[in-house]
Amino acid sequence: MSDTAKDPAVGGTAQVGVTGLAVMGRNLARNLARHGHTVAVHNRTAARTRALVEGFGHEGAFVPARTAEEFVAALERPRRVLVMVRAGAPTDAVLDGLAPLLDEGDVVVDGGNAHFADTRRRERRLRERGVHFVGAGVSGGEEGALNGPSIMPGGSPEAWAALRPLLEDIAAKAADGAPCTAHIGPDGAGHFVKMVHNGIEYADMQLISEAHDLLRHVAGYEPARIAEVFRTWGTGRLDSYLIRITAEILAHADPVTGRPFVDVVADAAEQKGTGRWTVQTALDLGVPVSGIAEAVLARSLSGHTRLREASAGLPGPHRPPLAEEDAAYFADQIEQALYASKLVSYDQGWHMMRAASEEYGWGIDPGTVAAVWRGGCIIRAAFLDRVRAAFAADPALPTLLADEGFAGEVGEAQPAWRSAVAEAVRHGVPVPGLSAALASYDALRAGRLPAALVQAQRDYFGAHTYRRTDRAGVYHTLWGGDRSEVRAGS
Amino acid sequence: MSDTAKDPAVGGTAQVGVTGLAVMGRNLARNLARHGHTVAVHNRTAARTRALVEGFGHEGAFVPARTAEEFVAALERPRRVLVMVRAGAPTDAVLDGLAPLLDEGDVVVDGGNAHFADTRRRERRLRERGVHFVGAGVSGGEEGALNGPSIMPGGSPEAWAALRPLLEDIAAKAADGAPCTAHIGPDGAGHFVKMVHNGIEYADMQLISEAHDLLRHVAGYEPARIAEVFRTWGTGRLDSYLIRITAEILAHADPVTGRPFVDVVADAAEQKGTGRWTVQTALDLGVPVSGIAEAVLARSLSGHTRLREASAGLPGPHRPPLAEEDAAYFADQIEQALYASKLVSYDQGWHMMRAASEEYGWGIDPGTVAAVWRGGCIIRAAFLDRVRAAFAADPALPTLLADEGFAGEVGEAQPAWRSAVAEAVRHGVPVPGLSAALASYDALRAGRLPAALVQAQRDYFGAHTYRRTDRAGVYHTLWGGDRSEVRAGS
Repeated sequence: MSDTAKDPAVGGTAQVGVTGLAVMGRNLARNLARHGHTVAVHNRTAARTRALVEGFGHEGAFVPARTAEEFVAALERPRRVLVMVRAGAPTDAVLDGLAPLLDEGDVVVDGGNAHFADTRRRERRLRERGVHFVGAGVSGGEEGALNGPSIMPGGSPEAWAALRPLLEDIAAKAADGAPCTAHIGPDGAGHFVKMVHNGIEYADMQLISEAHDLLRHVAGYEPARIAEVFRTWGTGRLDSYLIRITAEILAHADPVTGRPFVDVVADAAEQKGTGRWTVQTALDLGVPVSGIAEAVLARSLSGHTRLREASAGLPGPHRPPLAEEDAAYFADQIEQALYASKLVSYDQGWHMMRAASEEYGWGIDPGTVAAVWRGGCIIRAAFLDRVRAAFAADPALPTLLADEGFAGEVGEAQPAWRSAVAEAVRHGVPVPGLSAALASYDALRAGRLPAALVQAQRDYFGAHTYRRTDRAGVYHTLWGGDRSEVRAGS
Repeated sequence: MSDTAKDPAVGGTAQVGVTGLAVMGRNLARNLARHGHTVAVHNRTAARTRALVEGFGHEGAFVPARTAEEFVAALERPRRVLVMVRAGAPTDAVLDGLAPLLDEGDVVVDGGNAHFADTRRRERRLRERGVHFVGAGVSGGEEGALNGPSIMPGGSPEAWAALRPLLEDIAAKAADGAPCTAHIGPDGAGHFVKMVHNGIEYADMQLISEAHDLLRHVAGYEPARIAEVFRTWGTGRLDSYLIRITAEILAHADPVTGRPFVDVVADAAEQKGTGRWTVQTALDLGVPVSGIAEAVLARSLSGHTRLREASAGLPGPHRPPLAEEDAAYFADQIEQALYASKLVSYDQGWHMMRAASEEYGWGIDPGTVAAVWRGGCIIRAAFLDRVRAAFAADPALPTLLADEGFAGEVGEAQPAWRSAVAEAVRHGVPVPGLSAALASYDALRAGRLPAALVQAQRDYFGAHTYRRTDRAGVYHTLWGGDRSEVRAGS
């Protein structure tokens, strides 16, 4: 095979290669081939390569390769290689194997879920050899990989120029026809943005599940009826993939018992780590991402069976569900609470990207990220085109809440948002996501925060000093002495 | 100097040595000397050593040493060395310098704020040389170091046996006379527990500051009056150091302007990192510490001046403060909300210690930790003796909420807790800590969590599978197909 590879200076005939043919790699290879590109394909175990060619060879031009050498030889130069293996050690192993076979100017893309710090490290190492390394976030799952994912590549401008035609071909298309991919920034920027995407996804799922819980336990609706509510919401400003699949899940009856499907699913949500990474990274950057944090913590709590069993008998309120008329009114309040909380949580994600962009000098354009997320990825939503437009109008917008349109909406929603959270609290329904988002909103707009008292406490017990509202400088009060104030710095 | 050191097999005459004589090291050295121990003292720059001996030489027996060699020679064997330098590289530098001078059986204590992972690494390295390395958390600030800190040593039982007489002498004493120190567990256990102490401290300070904010903006009280309220609370079950100093801070008038001191302090709370470490570590351990997380995030938000300025005009409710009678009733509700939230947040700290103890095989006794925190440290409180008693009665208690006494209190408090949070939300006062604690309480006691919907969504878009409530096994629904269910594992 790969007898097409003749002149080593010219290389083979394949425009792109994919190594790692588990479901994501296979589907991206098929997506490329379906768009008319000749795709060299390689896998550590040859069976997967054979299966791909046998099963899907009719979809386009594949060049199967048995070894890394054959694989590299099959590619036209400069080479474009997409690595689709598990994040961590497997990625390093594949890169270590490829590096000696590559030439200056070749482009290697890691399309897995790498931590952006690993991507930065790998980019540095391969740059020393003259190879362009691109960390590309790919969102959309198996189905997206095949039919159009959202792709967030980070790397050199040269690498982007080489990849652009391929990526624009295979990416999802937004409603306006624009491909859902763009150059995010250098080295780890793409994987960072993908991580934040996943963090926002956690927050969105948590908020939706809390809205569902309130409709269930406060409004007293059955899942089928809640499915209707979500379907209606999905025709408005909440229109999104996650709202749509929520309606479908809630409408689904368990084929085994005939009961609502959501009632037979064990209520322990799992996680694969990107939400946790997002929060840990946000803490390092000093950005308050409470919406994502509460979502990660809620999943974690749900799995603590022993704790939950030990707490099961604790007292709570016993309130009946609302009367029919009140329930309908309440459902409308929940829509407003969900929308406002979503806006705040997404905004926290953008704060984080801005902070990282400043920290690492990435120059991430906030509107471009919104544009890329409009299609293909899990959080795709009509809403994101409005986020794109807000940042396009003012790329320096410090928060979405400063955009006139969003500010107006959240201002209008805030009374209902408060009612929904207060009602949840009175009924004993846990809404950590909705209430953290509201607390964040109220803290951001507060003229004075109780942080002043915290800083005073720190000065009292640890002489950590404080600043004053009325003059420059750093001060300390002699709490153990005569309580006079001394200047401690500038 | 150190001419007392004669026979190298016997060593010098000092029972203990302290190297690193900044304020914490100096005060611990003085504390040791005041208790009748001969203390070898050493500092990288000799001026500090001289200043200590000149200023405090009359307090006890100090043996000043100019070099590490002199310092080590001054110690009786097996040696006991307390290292009090900055965490990180400076600690490694001092240890690297000391290691070749030490003999098998010597004990080296790091009393700084090291990350427990660094302590584990250092313990391993020194153990190879036969040296016992102890990571000891020390809480209480400068004043505590001098007059009695809370000390949390982690290391070998042999090291504990060697240190115990010294540490019990200099530690704070609880109300029952017991010294506030104990062997926490092997290697990093002591520094881990100190980290959790600091995380709990963050949560407690945030909750107190929220309670203050509610008394200010909802009850309409002035700081002097709030000081009275805290003083009264401090005579009851909230009796603690942090409540006491809060009352003092709120009663303090700014000497410059005559205004309430808390009103002239800039409302941006700073942090030195242990709160952040606590949350990042909890995320790695999969323990939901929402109280600590919200406290860290609230501090972080308070410092984002640009975000806050951009959000300052956002709409909120305009409610007048409560009428006098209602305010008094509300103040009582806040006490209950604060107490219940404190209980939940402290409990989260204990969950975390249990998880780490299992992960690292530390065998941490939860009651011992409570006992050690009763005096000397920042979170010292009458409350902690009740925590000690609860774990003494049942060391396997999975949560403090399962203790009859605490469960009764929180059950009685929960209606007021709900009212306080609902009132805060209606008035637009941000209470991320109080509401996260309540959400955690409601989530723990919930029969069914909306995590079921989250897991169903994960199965829909990522084929992440789910478990069922009614039978064993792992399942996947063919969402893109006929929506039948397939078994995906056991």
